[in-house]
Amino acid sequence: MAPKTAVPPQASATQALRPVLADLDLSLGKRTRLHRLLYEHGLRNGTLMVLPIDQGIEHGPLNFFANPPSKDPKYQWELAAEGGYNAIACHWGLARMYMKEYAGRVPLILKINGKTNVPSDESAFSALTATVEDAVTLGADAVGYTLYVGSPRQDDDMLQYLEVREACERWGMPLVVWAYPRGSAIEKKGGRDSIYAVDYAARLAHELGADIIKLNVPVKSDKDAQQPKPYNELEWDYESGVRRVVETAGRSMVLFSGGSKVSDEDLLDKARVTMEQGSTGLIFGRNMWQRPMDEALALTERIKDLLRRFPA
Amino acid sequence: MAPKTAVPPQASATQALRPVLADLDLSLGKRTRLHRLLYEHGLRNGTLMVLPIDQGIEHGPLNFFANPPSKDPKYQWELAAEGGYNAIACHWGLARMYMKEYAGRVPLILKINGKTNVPSDESAFSALTATVEDAVTLGADAVGYTLYVGSPRQDDDMLQYLEVREACERWGMPLVVWAYPRGSAIEKKGGRDSIYAVDYAARLAHELGADIIKLNVPVKSDKDAQQPKPYNELEWDYESGVRRVVETAGRSMVLFSGGSKVSDEDLLDKARVTMEQGSTGLIFGRNMWQRPMDEALALTERIKDLLRRFPA
Amino acid sequence: MAPKTAVPPQASATQALRPVLADLDLSLGKRTRLHRLLYEHGLRNGTLMVLPIDQGIEHGPLNFFANPPSKDPKYQWELAAEGGYNAIACHWGLARMYMKEYAGRVPLILKINGKTNVPSDESAFSALTATVEDAVTLGADAVGYTLYVGSPRQDDDMLQYLEVREACERWGMPLVVWAYPRGSAIEKKGGRDSIYAVDYAARLAHELGADIIKLNVPVKSDKDAQQPKPYNELEWDYESGVRRVVETAGRSMVLFSGGSKVSDEDLLDKARVTMEQGSTGLIFGRNMWQRPMDEALALTERIKDLLRRFPA
Amino acid sequence: MAPKTAVPPQASATQALRPVLADLDLSLGKRTRLHRLLYEHGLRNGTLMVLPIDQGIEHGPLNFFANPPSKDPKYQWELAAEGGYNAIACHWGLARMYMKEYAGRVPLILKINGKTNVPSDESAFSALTATVEDAVTLGADAVGYTLYVGSPRQDDDMLQYLEVREACERWGMPLVVWAYPRGSAIEKKGGRDSIYAVDYAARLAHELGADIIKLNVPVKSDKDAQQPKPYNELEWDYESGVRRVVETAGRSMVLFSGGSKVSDEDLLDKARVTMEQGSTGLIFGRNMWQRPMDEALALTERIKDLLRRFPA
Amino acid sequence: MAPKTAVPPQASATQALRPVLADLDLSLGKRTRLHRLLYEHGLRNGTLMVLPIDQGIEHGPLNFFANPPSKDPKYQWELAAEGGYNAIACHWGLARMYMKEYAGRVPLILKINGKTNVPSDESAFSALTATVEDAVTLGADAVGYTLYVGSPRQDDDMLQYLEVREACERWGMPLVVWAYPRGSAIEKKGGRDSIYAVDYAARLAHELGADIIKLNVPVKSDKDAQQPKPYNELEWDYESGVRRVVETAGRSMVLFSGGSKVSDEDLLDKARVTMEQGSTGLIFGRNMWQRPMDEALALTERIKDLLRRFPA
Repeated sequence: MAPKTAVPPQASATQALRPVLADLDLSLGKRTRLHRLLYEHGLRNGTLMVLPIDQGIEHGPLNFFANPPSKDPKYQWELAAEGGYNAIACHWGLARMYMKEYAGRVPLILKINGKTNVPSDESAFSALTATVEDAVTLGADAVGYTLYVGSPRQDDDMLQYLEVREACERWGMPLVVWAYPRGSAIEKKGGRDSIYAVDYAARLAHELGADIIKLNVPVKSDKDAQQPKPYNELEWDYESGVRRVVETAGRSMVLFSGGSKVSDEDLLDKARVTMEQGSTGLIFGRNMWQRPMDEALALTERIKDLLRRFPA
Repeated sequence: MAPKTAVPPQASATQALRPVLADLDLSLGKRTRLHRLLYEHGLRNGTLMVLPIDQGIEHGPLNFFANPPSKDPKYQWELAAEGGYNAIACHWGLARMYMKEYAGRVPLILKINGKTNVPSDESAFSALTATVEDAVTLGADAVGYTLYVGSPRQDDDMLQYLEVREACERWGMPLVVWAYPRGSAIEKKGGRDSIYAVDYAARLAHELGADIIKLNVPVKSDKDAQQPKPYNELEWDYESGVRRVVETAGRSMVLFSGGSKVSDEDLLDKARVTMEQGSTGLIFGRNMWQRPMDEALALTERIKDLLRRFPA
Repeated sequence: MAPKTAVPPQASATQALRPVLADLDLSLGKRTRLHRLLYEHGLRNGTLMVLPIDQGIEHGPLNFFANPPSKDPKYQWELAAEGGYNAIACHWGLARMYMKEYAGRVPLILKINGKTNVPSDESAFSALTATVEDAVTLGADAVGYTLYVGSPRQDDDMLQYLEVREACERWGMPLVVWAYPRGSAIEKKGGRDSIYAVDYAARLAHELGADIIKLNVPVKSDKDAQQPKPYNELEWDYESGVRRVVETAGRSMVLFSGGSKVSDEDLLDKARVTMEQGSTGLIFGRNMWQRPMDEALALTERIKDLLRRFPA
Repeated sequence: MAPKTAVPPQASATQALRPVLADLDLSLGKRTRLHRLLYEHGLRNGTLMVLPIDQGIEHGPLNFFANPPSKDPKYQWELAAEGGYNAIACHWGLARMYMKEYAGRVPLILKINGKTNVPSDESAFSALTATVEDAVTLGADAVGYTLYVGSPRQDDDMLQYLEVREACERWGMPLVVWAYPRGSAIEKKGGRDSIYAVDYAARLAHELGADIIKLNVPVKSDKDAQQPKPYNELEWDYESGVRRVVETAGRSMVLFSGGSKVSDEDLLDKARVTMEQGSTGLIFGRNMWQRPMDEALALTERIKDLLRRFPA
Repeated sequence: MAPKTAVPPQASATQALRPVLADLDLSLGKRTRLHRLLYEHGLRNGTLMVLPIDQGIEHGPLNFFANPPSKDPKYQWELAAEGGYNAIACHWGLARMYMKEYAGRVPLILKINGKTNVPSDESAFSALTATVEDAVTLGADAVGYTLYVGSPRQDDDMLQYLEVREACERWGMPLVVWAYPRGSAIEKKGGRDSIYAVDYAARLAHELGADIIKLNVPVKSDKDAQQPKPYNELEWDYESGVRRVVETAGRSMVLFSGGSKVSDEDLLDKARVTMEQGSTGLIFGRNMWQRPMDEALALTERIKDLLRRFPA
C-alpha cells in the first residue's frame, strides 16, 4: 500500500470523510484490484480519474456530433491511455473489440448494465449487458452498475443488483454503483437532482454495499419544495450539499460525474469543490471526449494537476 | 487469412471504414467460422451475400404468394446452393428438416429468435426459437439475433441477448444482430427507419458486441422533425446516411437488408451504394426468392458481379 | 422401414405432398418411435388415427354430459384399444392412473401442456403439465404441445416450446404440435379458423421444427375481409384450403382434428378430403367418445376403412 | 453433397468397401463437419490427406532432429496450408498458439489425448489433453482420440472414451479414433502390428462408434504364430491384409498412417495399395515434415496426384 | 502494449527466439494479466524476475535453516516488495495470510499444486492445493502448476492439468508450468536434468498450452549415454543446451530457475546466459531468500541491472 502522505495544505477538515483503502475491511481480491485502480495507474495517489464511454447506449450517437472523431471508440481508449486516466468505464462490446492494445495499461471498469433513452424514464430499469464473470475474464478491475433509486421498478433492480453484488464478493471484484434517482415518483418529490434524491441514492447504494458510488452533484430547483421534510426546508450551498452526500456515502468512496459539457472553469471548480468535500475522484466523460484530442488532453492535465493535491 | 487484395478502382475513400477479418481481435472459433463465411464459400472475397428465409415466421406465408414454389423451404436452400450464396439464414426447423443435402456446402446462420406479426409491435420482443448450443450441434457458422432497439421491452431483450452473447463467446460462434428500431417510443421519435433510429440501433448493437450488424438503410420521412436533436436538423442523403450508420457500427461488420421487393435496378443501386459506403455485404431475401428460380439466379449473378468489385 | 407400397387408386396428385417417414432426416430415436406409431400399431400403413382425451382440462367435464360413461378415462383407453387406434393422446394423470393394462398395446402421445377455458383466450398461454422426461419415463412414443400462434403471449409460449423441442431432440421423442391461432390480435384479423390464421400456424409450427402438426380445417366466415392481404381476397374452397395448409406444413406431417361433434357423414367427408389433400391422419375425440361404445367402435371402423386407402 | 463421380479406372472391386458420406446415417453437425473435411478443403474429392503433429508429445523432440525447422510448430501449419492438406491434427497448445493465421483455412482435427513414451507401454493409457468442448470452441472439424486396444487399462480407456463419444454426439463433432493395439498382453499375442491386433482394433473402434479409424498397416513378423487361431494360420499379403482390416471397420472410414520415415517410393506404394483396398485417406506425419519444406511439398503433391484418382 | 524497444547491444541473434507479448494470440484476460506481470511491475521491461516461496511444501522447513528469518513468510513478501520483483509465487495459505499489505503492489502467481518430498519421487504426482478460481478471487495475475513429465502417473497429472488449463482459458488467467521431468522411468533414461528430459518437458508443456514454462538448465552427467538416441550422442554446451530448450518451448515464454544456492557470480552467469539464449526471465528463490535481507536486496539489484539489458 502506498504510504499515506502528509495531508496537503489544501485539505480541509472535511476531507477526513474520505475513505482510505488501507483502512477499509476488504477481501484480498477487492483490495488488490482497488489498489491497482488507486495507486498503480493514472494519478497513482489514491485519487481516481475515470473516463466513461457508455453514452452511446444511454443517449445514442447524438453525443458524438460535438466532436465527430469521438464516435470511434478508439478515441476514448486513446484519450484514457494518453491522458493517463486511472481507468476507462465501458460496456462489453467496446472492451472486447478495442481493448487489445491497452490491455493491462488502462484499467477497465466494465459497465454491466444499461438502457437506451428511447422509451420514457418513468419506470426506469437498466438491464444487464454483461456479468461479473465477464469482467473477470476480461481482466477488469471493477464493474459498474446503474441503480435507479426510487424507480417503480426498484424491486427488479435490487434483485438484479443482488446477484451482481454477490458475484463481486465471490470473485473479489470491486463494485462501482452509478446511484441515479429516477422515475415518476422521484420527479414528484423534487426531481432526480434534488438533494433529497441524491442523498437517498447515496444511502441506498451504501447500504447495499457499493465499494464506490458515482453521484451527481445535487442541484437546487424550483421543485425543491416538493421534497419530503425536512429536505424541503434544508439550507445548503454547493459545498455543504456535496459534503452531505459524501458523508451519507460513509465508507463507500464517492466519484462525482461531470454531466453534460460545461466550461473549463466550471469543470475545474466542480473538481476542486468535490475533492475538498471528500470525494475520492471524478468521472468525466462528455466534458472530456466532446473536445478535440489536444484540448481534451490539455484539460485532463489541468484536472490532474488539481487532483495531485488530494492524495489519500 | 486471404491476402488483402488491391483496392478495386471503385472503392471510395469511405470504404476504409470496413472492418477486415484479419485486423480484428477475435477468438479462434469466431475467426475460423467467420473465415468460412467470408472466404471459403460464396464470393470468397471477404464480402457476404446472405439469403434469409425467416419471413414465414415474421410475416406469415403471405410472403410466398408472389412466387408459390418459394413456400417449400427447399426452394431457398436450392437457391442458396445454386446461386453460390455465402450463407443461408433460417430458423431451426428449416435447418433441421431441409439441410441434409446442403450440410457443409451452404453455411448456416441459425436465426435463433423470432415472433409473428399478429400482435402489435408497440412493445416488440422476439423470443428465442433456438440456442447457441443448437447452432453448434447443427454445425452452423453463426447465429442471428433480432434486437428491438428502443422497445419498451428492451430490458427483457437485453437480458435474453446477454445469454446469447456469452454463449457465443463460450463456443466461438459469430453473432449477427438484426438491429431493428421498434416500438411505440421509436414511432414517436421519427419512426423505425429514421436516421436517428437506425444510427442508435447500430451503436447499441456495437456496444453490445455484435460481430456483424444487419441494418436497414435509413429513410427520410415526414416524421423527421420528431427526431431528437440534432438528427431533426441533420442534412444527409442516401450515401451519407449509409456512411453514417456504417461508421457508427465501428468494428462490427454491417450487412444491409433488401426489405420488400423492388425493381432490379433499385436493388443493384442499393447494393452498389451500401458497398461503396463500407458495408461488408448484403442480406437479400424477398427480393430474391419472390422471383422464379431462373430470374432469381440471374439477379443473384448480377449482384455477385457487383460484389466481386468489393473484396476485403 | 415398411416398404413404400404402390400408390393406391384414390391417391390424387396432391397426395405427393405427404411426407413419408423413410424419406425424412430424423434421429434414430424419433425414427423408431414414429415407426411404432405409423407402422406397428393401429392402421399399420403409415397413416395415423389418434384418440385425444384432453378436453376435460381444456373445456371441463361438460364435454362428458353427452355420453356419461366417457367421463371415466378408462372409456377412452378402452375405445383406443378396442378400436385399434394408432395412439391415444392425454395428460399425465390419465396416463399414470389408467395406462397399466394398455401399456405397450396402445401407444401414448403424452400431452404436456394445457389450460382451462375459464379465463378469456385474449392472451392465451398453455402451461406445461408434464415434461418430455415424463414421456420418456412412461414409455410414450410422442409428446403433444399446444402452441397459441399469434397470442400476445407468444414470447412465453415460444420460450417454453424451445425447452420442449430441445428435450425432444435430446431424447429422440417425436413432437406433435397443436398449432392453434388464438388471442385478441388474431380475432381482429379474421379469427382463429380463418385461412390466414391456420396457414400462419402451420408455417410457424413447421419453422419451429414440429414433427407432426395438428391443424383445424380452415373455415370461411364473415370476418374474412379483415384478414391481411392477400388472404382477404383469396379464392378457395374446402379442398384447396386444406391443401394449402398441408403444403405450408412442408415436411411436417399433418393431422386434422374433428372439432365438436358432427354427423357421421360430415366426419367421413372431412376424413376423406383431408386425406386426399395430403394429411397424414386424423385426431378425432369428441366425435368418437361422445357416442356409446358400440357406435363409437362402428364409426371408428368406417373411418379406418377409409384410411386404409391412404397408405404411405 | 458432392455428386459421386464415375469410378476411376484404377478403382478395384474392393473399393466398394469404402463408405461414402452421402450414404451414412449421421447427425447434421457431423455431416456438416465431415463434408468440410472431405469436400471443401484439400483434395475436395471425398479423400482425406491429414498432417499430424502430435509426435512432440508421443515421442519427444527427438523426432525433430532429422529436420530442425520442423521443431517450430509453424512449420507443420505452413506445410498443411501450402500443401493443401485436408486437415492438420494436433494438441490444444499447438492449435491455440499457432492457428490464428490459418483459422478456417486449414481444418483442425483436435487431438484430445496423449502420453509421453517415457514410461513403458505395458499398461498404456492415453489421458485427455483437451475436451470435445475445446474442439467446438476452437472451431475444429473433428477430434482425434487414441484408443489402446488390448491394454490392461482398457477399462479406464473405454470409460474415458465413452464421455468423448457422447460429447461428440451432443455437439455433432466427428470422432477419429487412433486405434492402436498396445500393452503387455498384445505383445504376447503377436504384437501391436500383427493382423490379429490391427483387425481387433478396427472392430473395437467400429463397435464403439468411431466415424473414422486410423490404423497402421498390419505387418508380418516372426511372432505371428503367437496370434490366436485362426490368425496364426491366416494366409494374407499386403493387399489382402489391408482389405481385411478395412472390411472390419465397416461403415467407419479408415485412414492409414505412414509411421516412421520411409523412401518416397515405399510411401507412394503404401498410399496406392491402401486406397485401392478401400481406405478413405492417409495421415502421414514424419514422412512429410521430416523433409525440408520444398521436398515435403513436392512429395505431398505426388501423393495428392495419386489420391485424386480415388474420389468418393 | 509497451513499444518494442531497440535491441540492446548484448542481444545475440538467438534472442530472436523470445516471444513478445504483443505478438502472441491471447485472450484479453491473459493479455491484461501478463501485461501487468511484464510491464507494470518490477522491471517493467517485458522481462520477469519472480520470487518463489513454495519450498516449505516441496522440501520442508529445512530450507530455512540457512537464514532463519526466511521461515517467516513475511520475509519473502517483504523481499519481493522491497526488491521490486515482478511477482511472488506461493501457495494459498501464504497468500491468504500475508498478502494484505502487498495486495496490488506485488503481483501474485498462485502456485496451485504441490507435494512433500517425504515419499519417493518414483511415481511423482503433485496434487492441487488451490484452484484457478481461488486465484481469481485473490486477484492473482497467474497460476503455477507443476507437471511431472514422464512420471508413471502422467495420466493423473495430465487430467488434473486439463481442468486447470480449461479454467485458465475460462477466466483469462495465465498459466505458468513448472515442467519437471520426474519418476523412475526418467531416471533410467539419463535423469531429470538431462537434456533429453528437459527438452521433452519443454515440448510437453508447450503442446499442452503453457503460457510460461519454468525449466531447469539442462546438466551433463555420467548417465548421458542412457538417454534415447540422438540425445545420447548430442554435442552441446551450456549455451546451446539452454538455447535448445528455449527453442523447443516455442511461443511459450521460458523462466529458468536458480535451484539450490550457488555463488553470486555463478548465479549472475546463469542469469546472463539464459537471457542471452532467449529466456523471458528468472525465478530465483533459495538463492535469494537464503541470504540476509541486505545481501538479498543487493544481489537482487545486481540481477535486475543485468535484466534491464534484456527488454522485450
